[in-house]
Formats: sequence, structure tokens, C-alpha cells
Amino acid sequence: MRAGLVTASGEVARKLVRPTSGGPDEVIDQIVALIGELDVVDLPVGVGAAGVIDRTGVVRYAPNLDWRDVALQERLADRLQATVTVENDANVAAWGEYRVGAGRQAVESMIMLTIGTGVGGGLVVDDRLVRGTGGMGAEFGHMILLEGGPLCSCGNRGCLEALASGTAIGRAATEARASGRMSEDSGLATAAAITGVEVTRAAQADDPFAVEVLAACGFWLGVGIAGLVNALDPELVVIGGGAVSAGELLLGPAREACHARVLGTEHREFAPIVPADLDEAGLIGAGLLALGV
Amino acid sequence: MRAGLVTASGEVARKLVRPTSGGPDEVIDQIVALIGELDVVDLPVGVGAAGVIDRTGVVRYAPNLDWRDVALQERLADRLQATVTVENDANVAAWGEYRVGAGRQAVESMIMLTIGTGVGGGLVVDDRLVRGTGGMGAEFGHMILLEGGPLCSCGNRGCLEALASGTAIGRAATEARASGRMSEDSGLATAAAITGVEVTRAAQADDPFAVEVLAACGFWLGVGIAGLVNALDPELVVIGGGAVSAGELLLGPAREACHARVLGTEHREFAPIVPADLDEAGLIGAGLLALGV
Repeated sequence: MRAGLVTASGEVARKLVRPTSGGPDEVIDQIVALIGELDVVDLPVGVGAAGVIDRTGVVRYAPNLDWRDVALQERLADRLQATVTVENDANVAAWGEYRVGAGRQAVESMIMLTIGTGVGGGLVVDDRLVRGTGGMGAEFGHMILLEGGPLCSCGNRGCLEALASGTAIGRAATEARASGRMSEDSGLATAAAITGVEVTRAAQADDPFAVEVLAACGFWLGVGIAGLVNALDPELVVIGGGAVSAGELLLGPAREACHARVLGTEHREFAPIVPADLDEAGLIGAGLLALGV
Repeated sequence: MRAGLVTASGEVARKLVRPTSGGPDEVIDQIVALIGELDVVDLPVGVGAAGVIDRTGVVRYAPNLDWRDVALQERLADRLQATVTVENDANVAAWGEYRVGAGRQAVESMIMLTIGTGVGGGLVVDDRLVRGTGGMGAEFGHMILLEGGPLCSCGNRGCLEALASGTAIGRAATEARASGRMSEDSGLATAAAITGVEVTRAAQADDPFAVEVLAACGFWLGVGIAGLVNALDPELVVIGGGAVSAGELLLGPAREACHARVLGTEHREFAPIVPADLDEAGLIGAGLLALGV
């Protein structure tokens, strides 16, 4: 859990990081204590939380914490006697990037894909964050790109997340090794378990096999972005999360696959695909949303 | 070309239908003459046109008319001495359905897919039509659902339009016949060329082969809708176009495939999938947009 004092221009003036433990009651106590440590008065509070958050700031479901129907916004507002805004973590990160990060030049719309273990998403349309009717907006990781393809954590097959995430990269490399498709001189040949982080590190050290795995993942990322660009025609596409460290090894192939699939490129500008820019996009976005900036 | 007098409550008080011919100059003359026939004064004019329309009402590209960079909104405003709004045809149809048609109960968001020869789309988010940065918003037909799948008119493979459109239905039935997978007693066995319209008609007459072809197409429609619902979490999904005549033969399988693929159904309501409601959604939506309703 991180807390910070965010200025209206998106700077983090003070920052604290603490572990969380226990159920909703304990975690709410910990949030209140942490905000107390920031030693501020009469400021609005913005919270980014992982999970399905409805429009009234109720955490309908948070898989990692196993919360169901926790009225986090209302309970924090009561405890803090402040205006509180609770929003999905990927959404606040997208808002931070849009306002003061990679999207700060954009004036009306942006898609953000956060590629880590899974794939998160955030969407800005007409200069506003799209929250979705039931708090599930911008779950871009579960757009199906290859019906019948690899199994996804959500139970479907061929989702973007099953094809282009840290987990997908690790799995592709592991499967290639198991089936003898990994060259023997690859640095990954003897690794105990291969994750996306290790593939990225090997690729950055010019391991051709790892470069190829990242490129294949970038291809699928590009196919997914193409669908989103055709559907939403945004000003900008921002890629965040752990995948940013793969840089052009991932984004180059993604751009190529996307450009080949986007419609009407002769008749309009279409969105550049750029890496995220902020270390604390979520913290900053939550703060700016609370400030109404 | 259709023109009508649309009231603020979405009724079409007067309607005229005329053929168009010639290039932009001639068609603009024909539009001006047609609006003259409506015999109204001092009313704003809304126009729905097929193609890529930018935010200033320039038709950047209209494939059917082969127009490029025609400043339709500006030229009509000059000629008519009126406020003119030019918008993409699928977008105005979506707006009509949202305001007074199948979406009239919705308060903030709606996805519309118009399934005809191709697949058009319209999107309402936060009670506003999403136009896209370059006038290409809501081209849902070109989201890729099966990379490497059937060739689409756009040059890509496995787009929603290549899997779930009138063209796709006709092609699936034709291919099944050519490869001997059509039962001999099907009413389609002896048809000269099989189109989506004929498959639908045969299915309505309980031809089991045609029912199966529509169900397969409905499956893909449902896969596409699932991705859109996961990405946008709308209040409502409206299906319009010629496909509406297939009714539950198409929408039933689409709902089933969609429901199996939408995330978080235990933690939120999610959008019903319903047929469009208006005969003149485009005309009405163009009128309402012009009126600012």
C-alpha cells in the first residue's frame, strides 16, 4: 500500500509505503493510519484499488484480497471526514498517465494497457475516464484475439492476456524449451522456471531466442491494439507495467502488427503507441482524480 | 438518400426518398434540393453519411461514393445558410436508437452493432456519442477475433465482419454446400447464389442447415460482443441492420457465446443484447444530433 501527497500539477510531495494485512476492517484501519502519517488536513482523498469497483466506490470483488462488497469509499469518508474517491487501480494509473505522463499532450482520448503478470486497462474518451456501467470498464486483457487459443486465467481461450502478458511470455518460452524449440546456447536453457522478467532480461542481453519470444508476444499485443484502435480511434495508446522494460523489443513488433491491421490509415492520423512515463502513475492519478484535475 | 423532418421527441413528421447520382457537386445540389422540398425554414440540419467523417464534418473518404476530402458540412452550411452537423451513418443510427429506440431506457452508455453486408458500429459513453479522434470510432467490425481466420473485405483476417455479417453468412453457407456439408434436402441446395438474406429466410422456414449457419455466425457475434463488453462495460448492446430479421436464430447463440466469455458476471449486472427498434434510426439520430437532443 502506497500513500502520497499529490499536488495539482501531479507531483508526489510525500510518499509512504506499507504492507497490508488482514480483512477489510484491518486494511481500512491501516489506510486511515497511513493517511494520518501524511499529516495533512482537509484534503480530498483518492484511492486506487485492484478489483471491480462500482460507481459508488464499493469494491464489489477484489480477487487478490478476496473482498466482496466492501463499501470502501463510504467507510473511508466516514472515518476520515473527507471527500473520498475510490477507483480501479488500472483506471487511476491511466488517468495519471493521461494528465501528466505519456498522455499529457493528448487532449481528449487515450487507451492504456498495463502489461504485467496480467493485462490491465484504462480508457479516456472525451477527456473523461471511462468507468463502465458496473465498474468493469477497460478490461482489455479479456478481448478474445484467437478464439480457441491458449487458456487464459479468466477461463476463456485466446484472450489478449493469454497471448501478451508476463505470464504468456514465460509460458511461451517454457513451452518452446520443453518441445526442443529453444536453442541450446540460450541463457534460458538452464533456468529453473522461466518468467517474463527473465525472458526480457535475456532479450536485452541479445539472446536471439528470447528476442523471438518477445516479438511473438509483441505481435499479439499489436493485434489487440489494432482492434482497440479500430473500435475507439484514440489519440494515443500507452503501454505500461513491467513490459515497459522490454521497450522496443516488445513495442516494435506490436506497432508493426497493429499498423498492418488498422483501417483507414490513408484517411486519418492514427494513434502512436508509446511507453508509459511515470513511476507512480496510480498514486498520481488517484490524487488528481480526487482533486478533480 | 432520405430526408425527413424530425421532431425533438424523435418522430419523423415528413419523409422523402430520392436516388443520388454524380460526384460531390451533384450530390450536394441534390441534398439542397431535397431539403428545399421539405419546405422548412430556420431549422438545424443533421446529415448521416457513410464513410470516414472527421470532426469538422469533412468526408475524408467514402468508399461507396468514392469521395475523398469533401467538406460536406461546410458546403451544406453555406448553401443552406443553416447549422449543419455531418456524422457517420452508423453513429447517427446508434444515437437514434440510444435516444428514442432500443436504448431509450439507457442513461449513459450503449454499444450498437449494425450487421448487414458488413458490420457498422456506434458507441455511446457517458451519455455522449464517441466519434473517435480521426472519425473512425466504433469500427467494431474490424476487431480481430480469430487471427489468421477468414479474409475480410479490409484485407485483414478473422475480423468480426469476416465471421459475422450478411457476407459471412452467405459465404459460410456457400462453402458448406461446395464441400458437401449442406444436407441435400436444404432449400438452399439449389439456390444460384446464397446470400445472408436467403439463409435467414430458409432458417425462418426451419431449414436445419440454415439454422446451423446462423447459429455459427451468432457464436462469432457473441465472441465479438464479449470482447466489447469486457472492454467497455456498457449498459446495453443493440444489434441492428438486416440481421435483425434473423431474430433469436442469431441473437440466441450470440448471447450464449457472449455470456460464457464476459468477466465478473457474479459481481455486476452486464449488458443485455437486444435488437434495434427503429425503422429510421439513422434519419432520427441525425435529426436529434442536429437538434442537440
